[in-house]
Amino acid sequence: MPPTILTWLVSKDVAAFTFGERHAAQLQTALGAHVLIAGNEAEFRAALPGANIALTWQFRQDWFALAPQLCWIATPAAGKDYLAGLQPPAGVRITYGHFHGEFMAETVLGMMLAETRGIADSLRLPGPWPRREIADRMTSLRGSHVVILGFGNIGQWIALLLQPFGVKLTGIRRRAGKGTLPVGELDRVLPQTDHLVVILPAEDDSRNLLDARRLSLLPRHAVIYNIGRGHCIDESALAEALNKEGLRAAYLDVFQQEPLPADSPLRTARNAVLMPHISAVAPFYLDRFVAEIIAAASA
Amino acid sequence: MPPTILTWLVSKDVAAFTFGERHAAQLQTALGAHVLIAGNEAEFRAALPGANIALTWQFRQDWFALAPQLCWIATPAAGKDYLAGLQPPAGVRITYGHFHGEFMAETVLGMMLAETRGIADSLRLPGPWPRREIADRMTSLRGSHVVILGFGNIGQWIALLLQPFGVKLTGIRRRAGKGTLPVGELDRVLPQTDHLVVILPAEDDSRNLLDARRLSLLPRHAVIYNIGRGHCIDESALAEALNKEGLRAAYLDVFQQEPLPADSPLRTARNAVLMPHISAVAPFYLDRFVAEIIAAASA
Repeated sequence: MPPTILTWLVSKDVAAFTFGERHAAQLQTALGAHVLIAGNEAEFRAALPGANIALTWQFRQDWFALAPQLCWIATPAAGKDYLAGLQPPAGVRITYGHFHGEFMAETVLGMMLAETRGIADSLRLPGPWPRREIADRMTSLRGSHVVILGFGNIGQWIALLLQPFGVKLTGIRRRAGKGTLPVGELDRVLPQTDHLVVILPAEDDSRNLLDARRLSLLPRHAVIYNIGRGHCIDESALAEALNKEGLRAAYLDVFQQEPLPADSPLRTARNAVLMPHISAVAPFYLDRFVAEIIAAASA
Repeated sequence: MPPTILTWLVSKDVAAFTFGERHAAQLQTALGAHVLIAGNEAEFRAALPGANIALTWQFRQDWFALAPQLCWIATPAAGKDYLAGLQPPAGVRITYGHFHGEFMAETVLGMMLAETRGIADSLRLPGPWPRREIADRMTSLRGSHVVILGFGNIGQWIALLLQPFGVKLTGIRRRAGKGTLPVGELDRVLPQTDHLVVILPAEDDSRNLLDARRLSLLPRHAVIYNIGRGHCIDESALAEALNKEGLRAAYLDVFQQEPLPADSPLRTARNAVLMPHISAVAPFYLDRFVAEIIAAASA
């Protein structure tokens, strides 16, 4: 019996995060599924009684009672904070997207190269021909040491894209595995880091992990990139480190509070490039998610 | 008998283009050479009588008469316009640098990713949380069609770095070779191009090759990158194409006239990212050049 798939994937900001007829057709063709598209919470709740699978950014505990036939909640989000605390009844599984690395890795490479290859400086400096100012800050990725703090699937995509650039790569994980270091080695690695890529999930034990002391262990020429969650960086300490030239630059896509408050010290910090939590955005974001659903449903 | 190598490599703008003691030591160690460092034209001319090899950005025809022992002029420049028109006497060879691709390719990847991954927009848009404006313009390189117009050594480096990004790549050369198309195919390829990378040498037959007509053949979402020489793009036509949204963006490192005049229409063109001829700059630029000299002298 073909499943009924209920989707409520709408984003007011990002068109690529909104489920549409194209995605419904993909599910219908591959799985013979009956696909219902909810545009808001009321429509979603109204359709829950008949749903076998729910594709959604949100789900509340009391909705399980409305959904006796539900066996699977899938969210495109990579971060488990999205459906945190949900206690599904027996027989209902919850899954997260695993396709983000492909797009996020492009963003990280772009940040690194925009910074090292004079592109960010060219956008910032309005002078008539600021050759000296920009050229003296240019470096090459080749031979540099890239440290990825939180080395999972997304980190592996970054490693793949960096492969022809000839960097030295170090992955750090909570529990070290094949070829990675444990987080206890972080303080030893920071002084030898040229590029620090942070991809930590929102978990309490990494809150403010990068505090003033650890930031001060980085070389003055080091650049920080955060595309995971904002909780792990002490933002006041980072702004101060940038302003006193203790770091070269910071590229931040995520923040302790989002949208970033107007009075955040990061807004005026020297060489802080601020992005509005978009590192995974791509036109075929939900096509990749649907492909994962189809693969899992067919397995 | 160890050669006397006379160097006059000084740049007022770019520290990485200025030859120093480190480079002299490399030549001395590898070749046993006697290395003379000239800081200006007068010192260079004064030392020419004893020079066997000259490493320089400039050489004038009448200086050959001052240099009876000279057998080799090597310039780090990749473009043959640097020593254009020089007629060396028999027994004197002129060589150019071939190491630029490594650095220029990083710059091109950075331009592409800064544009597609929301980084350039984040630097340009000062809003409090411009998520919608930026997200709707984001794309991925994966599956896109990158066309390299002038596909030589530098283009091959770009192809190498792009390898894990999953693009479709087309190289165009004056004379097509293995896997490349001839320039006569350009008009046919332009309408299917997402990213047009231009790396043409300064030669008369490519002057204003990208004129208003050819620019109009590109899709409206296409992006142009020029890192070769500026002569090949009609800059007024390009500014107009950008302003009327006939193109998505242009990343330009080279111009018809450099420094770019204050009244150039490119200065105010929509989504034109202007760079001051720096795409090859890297701290070890001259180390790579010296390595090429050593390899060639040892061959």
